[in-house]
Amino acid sequence: MHSLQKQRRNFFHNAIKIITSSPSSLLASNNISSTAGKVISCKAAVAWEAGKPLVIEDVEVAPPQAKEVRINIKYSSLCHTDLYFWESKCLPPSFPRILGHEASGVVESVGDGVSDLKPGDHVLPLFTGECGECRHCKSEESNMCEVLRINPSSEVMISDGKSRFSTMKGKNPRNISHFLGTSTFSQYTVVHSGSVVKINPTLPLDKACLLSCGISTGIGSVLNVAKPKKGASIAIFGLGAVGLAAAEGARIGGASRIIGIDMNPNKIKYAKNFGLTDFINPEEHEKPVHEVLKEMTNGGVDRCIECTGNINVLMSAMEALHDGWGVVVLVGVPSSDAVFKTNPFNFLNGKTITGTSFGNYKPKTGLPTLVDMFMNNKLELDKFITHRVPLSEINKAFDYMIKGEGLRTIIDMKN
Amino acid sequence: MHSLQKQRRNFFHNAIKIITSSPSSLLASNNISSTAGKVISCKAAVAWEAGKPLVIEDVEVAPPQAKEVRINIKYSSLCHTDLYFWESKCLPPSFPRILGHEASGVVESVGDGVSDLKPGDHVLPLFTGECGECRHCKSEESNMCEVLRINPSSEVMISDGKSRFSTMKGKNPRNISHFLGTSTFSQYTVVHSGSVVKINPTLPLDKACLLSCGISTGIGSVLNVAKPKKGASIAIFGLGAVGLAAAEGARIGGASRIIGIDMNPNKIKYAKNFGLTDFINPEEHEKPVHEVLKEMTNGGVDRCIECTGNINVLMSAMEALHDGWGVVVLVGVPSSDAVFKTNPFNFLNGKTITGTSFGNYKPKTGLPTLVDMFMNNKLELDKFITHRVPLSEINKAFDYMIKGEGLRTIIDMKN
Repeated sequence: MHSLQKQRRNFFHNAIKIITSSPSSLLASNNISSTAGKVISCKAAVAWEAGKPLVIEDVEVAPPQAKEVRINIKYSSLCHTDLYFWESKCLPPSFPRILGHEASGVVESVGDGVSDLKPGDHVLPLFTGECGECRHCKSEESNMCEVLRINPSSEVMISDGKSRFSTMKGKNPRNISHFLGTSTFSQYTVVHSGSVVKINPTLPLDKACLLSCGISTGIGSVLNVAKPKKGASIAIFGLGAVGLAAAEGARIGGASRIIGIDMNPNKIKYAKNFGLTDFINPEEHEKPVHEVLKEMTNGGVDRCIECTGNINVLMSAMEALHDGWGVVVLVGVPSSDAVFKTNPFNFLNGKTITGTSFGNYKPKTGLPTLVDMFMNNKLELDKFITHRVPLSEINKAFDYMIKGEGLRTIIDMKN
Repeated sequence: MHSLQKQRRNFFHNAIKIITSSPSSLLASNNISSTAGKVISCKAAVAWEAGKPLVIEDVEVAPPQAKEVRINIKYSSLCHTDLYFWESKCLPPSFPRILGHEASGVVESVGDGVSDLKPGDHVLPLFTGECGECRHCKSEESNMCEVLRINPSSEVMISDGKSRFSTMKGKNPRNISHFLGTSTFSQYTVVHSGSVVKINPTLPLDKACLLSCGISTGIGSVLNVAKPKKGASIAIFGLGAVGLAAAEGARIGGASRIIGIDMNPNKIKYAKNFGLTDFINPEEHEKPVHEVLKEMTNGGVDRCIECTGNINVLMSAMEALHDGWGVVVLVGVPSSDAVFKTNPFNFLNGKTITGTSFGNYKPKTGLPTLVDMFMNNKLELDKFITHRVPLSEINKAFDYMIKGEGLRTIIDMKN
């Protein structure tokens, strides 16, 4: 490494140490950190190739521009969407890239025009945002902000079309692609301020990180979209963290019957802890699962939550609904060439199908209701955490997920 | 005709005259009519063959059994469903049959166990009912009573599996099939009491009859199912009476843009009277209608009401929706082999599809809200009435509908 580069690297390493060891002292000194406006060098897990282990690299993180926030990420958790884009199963690969979108952290500095966030704020960076000005943000029915909605193909910040990340490869710096506007597998990241939600600083950040994607998605799919009546029956297809979060939503919503469906027989172990009243492994039945469900529930379930993304499962969920009032909510992401087919008399018979992204929570104005539930012990997050690893062992989190072991792995970003 | 039969016929004809000329005097005499418990002979329009003109026949109408009501039908109107079953385009034909299900009348007598209706009550007989006891009736989400839900294949009363109608063919009486539990193309009919709705006697029966099917279906599809926000845009596919009733619902619901779509260019004449802000004839556009709609509405309409029953139109309506909040409601009845297909990302993008029968109005407990709207002049019924004929000219009503002339023909049942 060139000596000047070395000096620079060391300078930023020291700077990080100051921030991470005493954020409160920075807060006290009129909310401006010593790193504000400067490039920060820190560790990040970089994906260089599809499906290949991430590499912990020294990366440089540029200061936030107008309407942007630089965040010191404290904890990330691994979500299936990270795995999906790491494997590059859909969009063209965009490597090198810093993945990660389910995280919590502390604001290090803010760019011009950011008035609702300041250094020291505890925050969740989100893969979707709320500009507050567009038709979606002004509609009480949508959380799909026109400006900041999820965009997996974007590799850069929207303000100037540039990346805030770079790393040295040989003698030259190389830009690193952003991911979902968050890239939280880095100790520092830059996020549009409309996608950053301030949370109560008393919340444990190693749990609150779960609220920035999967858990909110699952809970919201029930409470905000399916909206079951008290005492309803709910079938949940796919018992990953999102599906089990839907079960948590069903419990909070007062469902009397929560039926989990998964091809993995080991998932039955979650039944008690997540309030499932029934577990179905479709492979253990000769009849199609929708017929099994109809027999179990005297004609059909009141609500179905589809969390597998398998189009055949979605079509089966439609058949499993009770007529007159049944609603199926699509949460899982189908393949891009999937086609949903159904008999239109299902609609005339009072069945409904819809879907959701992020459980219909508007990030800034909606998510706080869920944070409140967590603070008031209505929502249990601990039971989703099955593993913990330091950033240096982030690839273990991928291994656990690939093997279907556990639910959520919390990645401690400090080392 | 055999002389005894003649005597019998004359007796009942006289009986009818008493009832129809002075219902109030019957009411006064402790609510029992002189015909109670007796067979009534009257005129009815009988369908003997698919697609052949109805024949005005002398028919005998048996007294109501337990939980049944015999109604003196005052006005019927012709709905497309009558035409559909007259043409026998779906279910096996069931002739001879007395069609008709959109009507108003006065209760002549009631069977055992009927406590909420009495002779003299002004009523609407309905093709669907509300037993009050089943899961659907107890659910606030459904109007599809398990006991009394629409059943086009039923030819008899559900209590004893028998018809209450007969007519003499040669020397022998021949039973006549019921239709939708109503058979209102007869001066007297017998209906399950759970399918009979009492209305305020000050309402004009020659208009109120419209509330017993199509108009309520259209209005309810908007107000009860699509539930647009004030200022919403609504596209209505198919501008028959049901579609225009949906426009009326959109007007009542405060829509800012009501876009009517029909292949018949003459339908533009209804635009002003029904508050349509735009009219689209798809044949006048090179682009698919959903693209036309998206361009007109800055990205898509807020709600679509599908009233044609054409599956391709339904699929187009799904594409025409705005993402984030768009809802399409299926009202038209597709062919039995139709398959609805769509890209499931439509659901993930916040679009919803559902459907309805009778606009989700529960007959006994829900329809009165619509009757109130009519009484309070919020709902305009006159503009749906384009023709009037006596029972003796009922086939003219069929001709008007086949030719697409007008909206609703009121059939005066007294002669």
